[in-house]
Amino acid sequence: MSVAITGTGSFRPSTIIENSNFKKNTFLNVDGSIIEGPNEVIIEKFKSITGIGERRYANNEMNTSDLGYLAASKAIESAGIDKETLDYIIFAHNFGDVSLGKIQGDTLPSLATRVKHKLGIKNPKCVAYDLLFGCPGWIEGVIQANAFIKAGMAKKCLVIGGETLSRVVDDYDRDTMIYSDGAGAAIIEDAQNKGQLLNHKSATYANDEAFYLFFGESFNKKNQEDRRYIKMYGRKIYEFAITHVPQAMKECLDETGKDISEVKKIFIHQANEKMDEAIVKRFYRLYKLKSPKNIMPMTIGKLGNSSVATIPTLYDKVKKGYIEGHSIEKGDVVIFASVGAGMNINAMVYQI
Amino acid sequence: MSVAITGTGSFRPSTIIENSNFKKNTFLNVDGSIIEGPNEVIIEKFKSITGIGERRYANNEMNTSDLGYLAASKAIESAGIDKETLDYIIFAHNFGDVSLGKIQGDTLPSLATRVKHKLGIKNPKCVAYDLLFGCPGWIEGVIQANAFIKAGMAKKCLVIGGETLSRVVDDYDRDTMIYSDGAGAAIIEDAQNKGQLLNHKSATYANDEAFYLFFGESFNKKNQEDRRYIKMYGRKIYEFAITHVPQAMKECLDETGKDISEVKKIFIHQANEKMDEAIVKRFYRLYKLKSPKNIMPMTIGKLGNSSVATIPTLYDKVKKGYIEGHSIEKGDVVIFASVGAGMNINAMVYQI
Repeated sequence: MSVAITGTGSFRPSTIIENSNFKKNTFLNVDGSIIEGPNEVIIEKFKSITGIGERRYANNEMNTSDLGYLAASKAIESAGIDKETLDYIIFAHNFGDVSLGKIQGDTLPSLATRVKHKLGIKNPKCVAYDLLFGCPGWIEGVIQANAFIKAGMAKKCLVIGGETLSRVVDDYDRDTMIYSDGAGAAIIEDAQNKGQLLNHKSATYANDEAFYLFFGESFNKKNQEDRRYIKMYGRKIYEFAITHVPQAMKECLDETGKDISEVKKIFIHQANEKMDEAIVKRFYRLYKLKSPKNIMPMTIGKLGNSSVATIPTLYDKVKKGYIEGHSIEKGDVVIFASVGAGMNINAMVYQI
Repeated sequence: MSVAITGTGSFRPSTIIENSNFKKNTFLNVDGSIIEGPNEVIIEKFKSITGIGERRYANNEMNTSDLGYLAASKAIESAGIDKETLDYIIFAHNFGDVSLGKIQGDTLPSLATRVKHKLGIKNPKCVAYDLLFGCPGWIEGVIQANAFIKAGMAKKCLVIGGETLSRVVDDYDRDTMIYSDGAGAAIIEDAQNKGQLLNHKSATYANDEAFYLFFGESFNKKNQEDRRYIKMYGRKIYEFAITHVPQAMKECLDETGKDISEVKKIFIHQANEKMDEAIVKRFYRLYKLKSPKNIMPMTIGKLGNSSVATIPTLYDKVKKGYIEGHSIEKGDVVIFASVGAGMNINAMVYQI
C-alpha cells in the first residue's frame, strides 16, 4: 500500500494588507500600557523577526469554509478524480466560520459539511468532519486520512486546512500583524507510483504548554466589548518550537531509514521566519550538519501566517512551480513539520 | 485484532431543570409571532412527543471541557488503565467551551488538550484533538479510534462526547426545552476477550440536508443582540432520521453475519422519544418484525438531549446497571446509532 498526495490546491484571498496598513494602530502591552516609539519602528522590528511584509485577508463576504471550498475544488481538479469517489472530507480549522463583523464562530453545520454542500457531492458515504488541532491540523488530517486508508476504511480523502484569522485578531496587539487568511487542500489516495507517505509523528504537550496559545481579552482594558481574541505567548512558543520540532523531525526521518542527505525540501508551518530558520538549523545540527541553502521554501513574506492553511498552500505552490528557486521532482524525499495551539507538533516524511 | 470498549464513564450535572421551569417563557414561532395557548399546554405537548420531563444544566462555573474531564476520569478508572498509556484523546463536541454569560465558544486550545491538561497526562505521544461531527460525534470518535488501532498507530484511545447546549439556546424557541448538558466517555482498546467492535457505518448527507440544524437568530425579532443560537427544522430531521437511520443500522448489522434475533439492545441518540421509537420500529420492519419490548434503553426523560453526550452516557448507565430493566452481558450483540447536524448518521455493531 502506498498513500500518496495525488492533487493539491490553495486559495489566496485577493485583498492585500501591507505592513503600512498598521501605521495607525495603537499597539499596547499586555498590561494595557502604550508601546513606546513610532509604529514605523514597531513594524520594522516585526518584519525583521517574522519576515512578514504583507498578508491576505478574505473578502468581506467570504468565510473560512468558502476559502476551503475554493482550495478543495482545485485539489480535486489537480488530482483528476471524480469528486463522488471521495470517502472523506476532513476540514482542519480552529474557529469555524467567523463572518465579518460577527464575533461568534459558526460550526453548525461543520465546515466539512459546508464544503461538501458547495461541491455538490451527492454520495452520502463521503464522510465529512472537522478536526481541531491548532496550526498542525492539516498535517494531522493527512495522518488521519492515512489511517483510514490503512485500516481499509477509505481509498480517497480530501484534507483541507483553512482559517480567517483576520476575524479573531485584537487590533491593539502587535501579534495581529502576524495573522492572515487562506486555505489549502490535498487529495490523499491509495495510489501506486504517485508518491508515498513514509512516516509520521504527532505529539500534544498539554502541561504548562496547553495555554501558550489561547483565546483572551483585548489588550485595551477600556474596551468594554465582551469579546475574546487569538492571543499567544510568543517567546514561550519560540522556545518550545525550537526545542521540540527538530527532535520530532529527526525521529520521523530516522525511522524511515532515509539519510539526511536525501532530504530535498522542508515544508514548515509559516509561523515566523526567524523561528522556522532556527528550527531547520537545529534539525541539521542534530546530524552535526549546517542547513543546506534553499532547503526551506517560504511564503510568509507575502502571505503571513494563515494557521492550518500555510503548509498545504506552500506545498501546492512549490509543487506547481510558483515559488522561484524551489522545485521538487519524482523520488524526492521531503519533510513536512508543524507546531501550534495544543501545543501540538507533527511531522511527515514523504517521497514525491 | 479485537477493538473493545474497556471502560466507560459519564458526568451528569447536578442542576435539574424541570419542564415547569419553562412556564414563564415567551414562546414564539419562527416569524416572531406568539404561539397561542398557555405554556402548560405547550409543555405538555412537548413532553408527549419528546419524552423529556426534565434535563440537566451544567453548574455556572463549568464548561464542556470540565464535564468531559469528569466523564473521562471515570472511564479511565473503570478501564483500570494507566492514563499515561493513552495514545489518543478524541473530544467530540460542536460549540467549544461556551462560558456562562458569554456568547463566543472557545476552542483555543482544543477541548481535548484541556482534558489532557486536567488529567495531568505528561506523555506527549498522547495526541489530543477535537472532532466536530454533530450529535453522532462520539460514535465517529470510536470509529476513528478503531481506525488508528487497526492502522497500528494506537493501542488505547479515550473518546469523549460532551456538550453544554444550555449555553446556545434561544429562550423564545420551544426547542430550547429539548437541549441539555452532559458528557460521556469510553476507553477504546486493542484487547482480547473484552468485547469487539464488529462493524460500523457512517454517512454525511450535505445537499438539502446540510442546514437542517444550523446556527440562527433568535425568534424574537425585537432582540437586537447580535447572537446566534442552535436552531433546527424538527420535522425535516424527523423524516430524515426515520428514513436513513434504520437503513444504516440494517446494513451495518447484515454485514456482520449476525442475525437480527441476536441483537440484545439498541443504544440510540437521545434526540426525541417518538423519533427514536419510530427509528427502531422501522428498523425491525425492515426484517418484517415487530420491535421487541425493552430493546431500547432511554435516558431522555430525565436527561434531555445533550447531543454528543447521550450515547456514551446511556451506554455507561446500562453497563453499570443504573437503568432499571436493562442489563447487558458478555457476548451480547448491541447496536449503537446516531443522527444529527451535518446531517450525519452512523451506526456500530458491538459484541459485549
